[in-house]
Amino acid sequence: MEHKILVLNGPNLNLLGDREPDQYGEVSLEQLEADLRSEFPDTDLSFYQSNHEGDLVDRLHEGHRSGLSGIVFNPGAYTHTSVALRDAVRAIETPVIEVHLSNIYSREAFRHFSHLAPVCVGQISGLGTVGYSLAVRWLRANA
Amino acid sequence: MEHKILVLNGPNLNLLGDREPDQYGEVSLEQLEADLRSEFPDTDLSFYQSNHEGDLVDRLHEGHRSGLSGIVFNPGAYTHTSVALRDAVRAIETPVIEVHLSNIYSREAFRHFSHLAPVCVGQISGLGTVGYSLAVRWLRANA
Amino acid sequence: MEHKILVLNGPNLNLLGDREPDQYGEVSLEQLEADLRSEFPDTDLSFYQSNHEGDLVDRLHEGHRSGLSGIVFNPGAYTHTSVALRDAVRAIETPVIEVHLSNIYSREAFRHFSHLAPVCVGQISGLGTVGYSLAVRWLRANA
Amino acid sequence: MEHKILVLNGPNLNLLGDREPDQYGEVSLEQLEADLRSEFPDTDLSFYQSNHEGDLVDRLHEGHRSGLSGIVFNPGAYTHTSVALRDAVRAIETPVIEVHLSNIYSREAFRHFSHLAPVCVGQISGLGTVGYSLAVRWLRANA
Amino acid sequence: MEHKILVLNGPNLNLLGDREPDQYGEVSLEQLEADLRSEFPDTDLSFYQSNHEGDLVDRLHEGHRSGLSGIVFNPGAYTHTSVALRDAVRAIETPVIEVHLSNIYSREAFRHFSHLAPVCVGQISGLGTVGYSLAVRWLRANA
Amino acid sequence: MEHKILVLNGPNLNLLGDREPDQYGEVSLEQLEADLRSEFPDTDLSFYQSNHEGDLVDRLHEGHRSGLSGIVFNPGAYTHTSVALRDAVRAIETPVIEVHLSNIYSREAFRHFSHLAPVCVGQISGLGTVGYSLAVRWLRANA
Amino acid sequence: MEHKILVLNGPNLNLLGDREPDQYGEVSLEQLEADLRSEFPDTDLSFYQSNHEGDLVDRLHEGHRSGLSGIVFNPGAYTHTSVALRDAVRAIETPVIEVHLSNIYSREAFRHFSHLAPVCVGQISGLGTVGYSLAVRWLRANA
Amino acid sequence: MEHKILVLNGPNLNLLGDREPDQYGEVSLEQLEADLRSEFPDTDLSFYQSNHEGDLVDRLHEGHRSGLSGIVFNPGAYTHTSVALRDAVRAIETPVIEVHLSNIYSREAFRHFSHLAPVCVGQISGLGTVGYSLAVRWLRANA
Amino acid sequence: MEHKILVLNGPNLNLLGDREPDQYGEVSLEQLEADLRSEFPDTDLSFYQSNHEGDLVDRLHEGHRSGLSGIVFNPGAYTHTSVALRDAVRAIETPVIEVHLSNIYSREAFRHFSHLAPVCVGQISGLGTVGYSLAVRWLRANA
Amino acid sequence: MEHKILVLNGPNLNLLGDREPDQYGEVSLEQLEADLRSEFPDTDLSFYQSNHEGDLVDRLHEGHRSGLSGIVFNPGAYTHTSVALRDAVRAIETPVIEVHLSNIYSREAFRHFSHLAPVCVGQISGLGTVGYSLAVRWLRANA
Amino acid sequence: MEHKILVLNGPNLNLLGDREPDQYGEVSLEQLEADLRSEFPDTDLSFYQSNHEGDLVDRLHEGHRSGLSGIVFNPGAYTHTSVALRDAVRAIETPVIEVHLSNIYSREAFRHFSHLAPVCVGQISGLGTVGYSLAVRWLRANA
Amino acid sequence: MEHKILVLNGPNLNLLGDREPDQYGEVSLEQLEADLRSEFPDTDLSFYQSNHEGDLVDRLHEGHRSGLSGIVFNPGAYTHTSVALRDAVRAIETPVIEVHLSNIYSREAFRHFSHLAPVCVGQISGLGTVGYSLAVRWLRANA
Repeated sequence: MEHKILVLNGPNLNLLGDREPDQYGEVSLEQLEADLRSEFPDTDLSFYQSNHEGDLVDRLHEGHRSGLSGIVFNPGAYTHTSVALRDAVRAIETPVIEVHLSNIYSREAFRHFSHLAPVCVGQISGLGTVGYSLAVRWLRANA
Repeated sequence: MEHKILVLNGPNLNLLGDREPDQYGEVSLEQLEADLRSEFPDTDLSFYQSNHEGDLVDRLHEGHRSGLSGIVFNPGAYTHTSVALRDAVRAIETPVIEVHLSNIYSREAFRHFSHLAPVCVGQISGLGTVGYSLAVRWLRANA
Repeated sequence: MEHKILVLNGPNLNLLGDREPDQYGEVSLEQLEADLRSEFPDTDLSFYQSNHEGDLVDRLHEGHRSGLSGIVFNPGAYTHTSVALRDAVRAIETPVIEVHLSNIYSREAFRHFSHLAPVCVGQISGLGTVGYSLAVRWLRANA
Repeated sequence: MEHKILVLNGPNLNLLGDREPDQYGEVSLEQLEADLRSEFPDTDLSFYQSNHEGDLVDRLHEGHRSGLSGIVFNPGAYTHTSVALRDAVRAIETPVIEVHLSNIYSREAFRHFSHLAPVCVGQISGLGTVGYSLAVRWLRANA
Repeated sequence: MEHKILVLNGPNLNLLGDREPDQYGEVSLEQLEADLRSEFPDTDLSFYQSNHEGDLVDRLHEGHRSGLSGIVFNPGAYTHTSVALRDAVRAIETPVIEVHLSNIYSREAFRHFSHLAPVCVGQISGLGTVGYSLAVRWLRANA
Repeated sequence: MEHKILVLNGPNLNLLGDREPDQYGEVSLEQLEADLRSEFPDTDLSFYQSNHEGDLVDRLHEGHRSGLSGIVFNPGAYTHTSVALRDAVRAIETPVIEVHLSNIYSREAFRHFSHLAPVCVGQISGLGTVGYSLAVRWLRANA
Repeated sequence: MEHKILVLNGPNLNLLGDREPDQYGEVSLEQLEADLRSEFPDTDLSFYQSNHEGDLVDRLHEGHRSGLSGIVFNPGAYTHTSVALRDAVRAIETPVIEVHLSNIYSREAFRHFSHLAPVCVGQISGLGTVGYSLAVRWLRANA
Repeated sequence: MEHKILVLNGPNLNLLGDREPDQYGEVSLEQLEADLRSEFPDTDLSFYQSNHEGDLVDRLHEGHRSGLSGIVFNPGAYTHTSVALRDAVRAIETPVIEVHLSNIYSREAFRHFSHLAPVCVGQISGLGTVGYSLAVRWLRANA
Repeated sequence: MEHKILVLNGPNLNLLGDREPDQYGEVSLEQLEADLRSEFPDTDLSFYQSNHEGDLVDRLHEGHRSGLSGIVFNPGAYTHTSVALRDAVRAIETPVIEVHLSNIYSREAFRHFSHLAPVCVGQISGLGTVGYSLAVRWLRANA
Repeated sequence: MEHKILVLNGPNLNLLGDREPDQYGEVSLEQLEADLRSEFPDTDLSFYQSNHEGDLVDRLHEGHRSGLSGIVFNPGAYTHTSVALRDAVRAIETPVIEVHLSNIYSREAFRHFSHLAPVCVGQISGLGTVGYSLAVRWLRANA
Repeated sequence: MEHKILVLNGPNLNLLGDREPDQYGEVSLEQLEADLRSEFPDTDLSFYQSNHEGDLVDRLHEGHRSGLSGIVFNPGAYTHTSVALRDAVRAIETPVIEVHLSNIYSREAFRHFSHLAPVCVGQISGLGTVGYSLAVRWLRANA
Repeated sequence: MEHKILVLNGPNLNLLGDREPDQYGEVSLEQLEADLRSEFPDTDLSFYQSNHEGDLVDRLHEGHRSGLSGIVFNPGAYTHTSVALRDAVRAIETPVIEVHLSNIYSREAFRHFSHLAPVCVGQISGLGTVGYSLAVRWLRANA
């Protein structure tokens, strides 16, 4: 098992499948995690979700210390408001890919701006749960 | 007991009565809660206050799962900065009324904008502790 | 009869019940006034509606001179454009509560700003015709 | 006589022919009205001009009640400042075409914005008094 | 009697002396008018006050037709919101001086902008009721 | 044949009838051109459509050299982004009327601004294919 | 061969490999295209690059007519300036994924805004030439 | 001699009469000063002009120390750029009236803003050299 | 031991010494705390760091209750986003000095604004770890 | 012949001499080119003008490949709208000087901004056709 | 005597002790200078104050030439308006610390921005005259 | 000697050669002046540099009075802040060319705006010391 990748999810993503299915789809977070495990059996995947900004900062620090190959991060609403998460991503050396389920550029104007995008490797937006899979694929090939 | 209503208070509201009494009045949060209980003896009222954005998100999710009739929510300073709380209110089906003790429109410009207002049923601002009582009254009549 | 309260309505509110019922409900202005009279039989309620900014300024001055306890004011579209009404509210000593039937914060951006809010006691928005009743209730308790 | 069309003019248009002829031309409002009557003898045309925002709101309501086919409306300076007129146009079902004598886009920046344009059927600007005629023609063909 | 000058006052100025005396002084509008008559016995002074934007437009037109030498105009709150009054001042040939009792530049930001200033001869602000007298003096010397 | 008029259409208008029929109607560009020819049999009408900004600039120059009476121009998306077309319209002496099928003021904010409007004779917006006909009519009467 | 996918590249991408290799990498456009063909041997891939906005509009229309499964589009600099391309993407029914080699959010502010993002299915930014491959993969799975 | 008044002029006002006479008139600074002396023979008038911001600050300090009744100040271009002069006016107790020869509100946008206006007693703009005389008159009556 | 001072550090400051040493230096948070204890042996210093906004709010409240002389606060990224911390500082009576290791004014634009600065006693920025020492020194002399 | 210099002109510059002679002078593009050839007989000058953004991008690429010493570029209206040209200038190594006939800073606000200026060597504006000559002179001395 | 430090003060600071004592304290500039001399007897301190921007530029140049260890600079109002001082600080190699007596972030919005902050070592604001002492202390320890 | 030309330099340009040589080059101001004298032996060149805004205003006035053919002006940092210099340039009839050594459009955003550009004949930016020579050349040919 070569790659060690953390899939990190921010606020309200625990409601996945339940919350506004038109916007976010009908797959639950548990299902999404199970699907990734099946798709990448030879990757050491870990998962964490929290509604607390501080928890996500802590988890990024911890990921850095534990020698991850990379992080797939959907920061949810904190995308648009958190400089603390931006600074945490910048502070660690682990490559981070920002993922959004929905196309944030076809929604409300305040969702068009991401505090984290400038310090992540890249961003995948609007490709649903497949976006997570594409991000893991990139990290396996490049990180 | 027909209605089950949560009264949710955000950051610094634990200091009520103590903090800037000219702005926020001299009634403590405990007194405010006691007064609401006396005024609405036949309503199942619960109360929660936290200075943590993530706790408030968690509590909104939990309220949704426990089948509340409605929520009276004073998000305090998070009114102006939290997209996570906005998304939580939108994600749940429970009707939420936003309440502010002081008139947020006669204070600093950054207090004139609410991230939550567009997704709440309505807003009551500037009517002091009575604002909570009016909000409960509305939820009893409409929710 | 202790309290003397004026319920003042601005432009296009004469069309209530008729105009965009999805937005404003199906109750006519006449019905709204009748309902308030029944709900508060021991309050001296008066009503006035005009599409003319100047008439509303005149009526606020007159209300001040006639010794009202308070005014429930839905300024309609003038909310967003009238400094003259703001100055009139500020000039008189009578407490004024601003009421909006619909949630002005979930509508077009230009409706999010109120010239009058900073000089009123408080604002109730999005609670439909019940908003008028809650405002009268507050004035009876506090003015 | 099939079509019943109101030609409504806002503030300062009573001075037409007299006021800044380089900008607005030399035809008086009376002449403009007479010309339209001759051009459309089989249309029931009515005319109204006022410098009062409230009068124009009243007249739009009345036009709606009297079953007009359509309204040709030059709101003059209220184009740029009146949400009340916007709401009145939206409240009624009668189709309204906004007309401006001069090209408002080649004048001061504050004239480039129209509160009414988004709720009218369309806008004709800069084509002088002929603009009124083209608007009547459209209403006859489409309303 | 050579000069014929109109002193025109806008919304809420009928409350002068009564309204926020710290801001506007303790002299009533009647007293102000009487003082100007005594100070300029050989000038044909007329006075008009209205809370209605349309009335003020009408009065400017009428003043133009009646051959005034000049107009001293305190547009009150309409200073900041009325393009109709701006257009009326521009449409007539009579010189107009804009007067404000208080210093509008040391008050709220929205009072710093005047729609009328660019089309008036000049502006006098912050010099109290003496401002009216200085304006009449200028018109007698220059108009 | 007195008048020589060019009807010029910009990007994506070749898809007319096919593209978003709710927004742009079901008439094809060919049909629109045929309809104009039938409506104005005694006018020398020519037609040109291109998705290339440079082609449209070239065609405006050529129109100028060939002595057109006027141009009816729907610049499509270039309305909002092209200073080159603005400069081309300004450089030639031929009168140009800007036409839009849909009401650009009830659509996305970026469509409310036109680089060309200030240098055209006038603008017709929201009146569908009839807008072209009204523009030809104006040019026949005035150019 | 089930899927028919167009890989469309905008201005200056013909210089790939040559131009600012630190920013865009050292792989040429020819190499990128060859790599995609090897990676997806059972997909009908076509390629087109142009520095002309109009050509790209034309090619999008043509792609739509030829029944493509999807389009991978790197609009280069036109991302930030072209409403014509936005309208073309919206006009056709073919799903389009926007791809950028570099992370546009860590570069100059004017590169943070995309006219096309709101009308594309999604966006992949900052993942280098692998971004094209991930986009093809998504279209094969979903389109 | 009761009143001691300083007439202070800022940059480029030494060119008065010579510079853009259409904008500033044909009276020289020397003539303006002489005219004021004749008009107010019983007032102790002093005059100072400088193109140096620091000199004007120094002169305001000195005026304060020498017990002036008031200052008539035309800050010229420093009106729009100098916080140092604003602070100097605020630091001293002497009343200052800001005067402008031309109507600064009918000129370029950057001239509409005055750093000094909020800390002066009032402002007279657009009344030519008579503006200085009116300001002296006000100071004699009120300071 | 006269003075009781809390040194409070916000998000990511636990990584001090490790994180971007060019920007933040090579001293760890533990070392910084030890250095302060040695420098001020007769001061009752306490230390707290958290990545959680809510924890910092709680700690400010607690500090207030425990009778501190003052607080040296480096809010890290929350400087730029937290109204909750601003309100907490305002709510307590303990003097707070805001400290930043790096010069926040020579970094990204979003770091130039501090929500807390207006309610703190003062701010020290760019003076590295010495900034904490200077702040303690000030509190010992003035609080 | 040592230097090989391309003189590149953008949209509408083919109309030179004909178009708004007050703004752009009476010299035609042919004359301008002939004058430069006579002034610099020992320089290998080539000339190209196009109204097409894409053509100009192509020509910059080609110039780069053909080993030019430098390019004198008047991008006309594309100055203000083209990121594609900016990227082309940045992509090639040939030094480019931006030239404008008229003073773009004394014209409409939208002409004050140049997308190309930051990536060119320098800019010459307002010096008429002589500006081209000065630019060639600079390139001969420095490139 | 090892360190040679200049304490430089800008406009209106000569009035210290006299001017708005609530804002700036009651200590005069002479007293402040004397206090610094006593506090740092073994430092070569020099002092300069001027109301002239150019003098302060000259003095910074001269300080640079005379081999200062560092400069403590309170630029007063020029903080907010002077690019010349910013350029002077940047041009010299001497470290400069910006000091403000009052908390500039709790005053008018225009005082929140400093042209000099990005090029100084750091900034101390709101700590009164002690701020100068802390700055000297830092320079002694680090310069 | 036909032409009389002043070369005027603003703040910090006395440090030329010494200050940030990467940005401004290694030629001193004395050398630059000597080079111009050698290049234009038959032109009456005079030179002046000052760090004082007022001195530069004075010198422009004096230049005007002494009958100069033209002025080459590098206003340094005052380019971005001085309306007084703008007004001085406009007040005199002598043609002025604005010169900048570095490309002001590839530096900080606040350097992209020039108060003087709109009133100068033209601007040369980014061409180093040669820019002065080209400006003298233009004045000799055209002034």
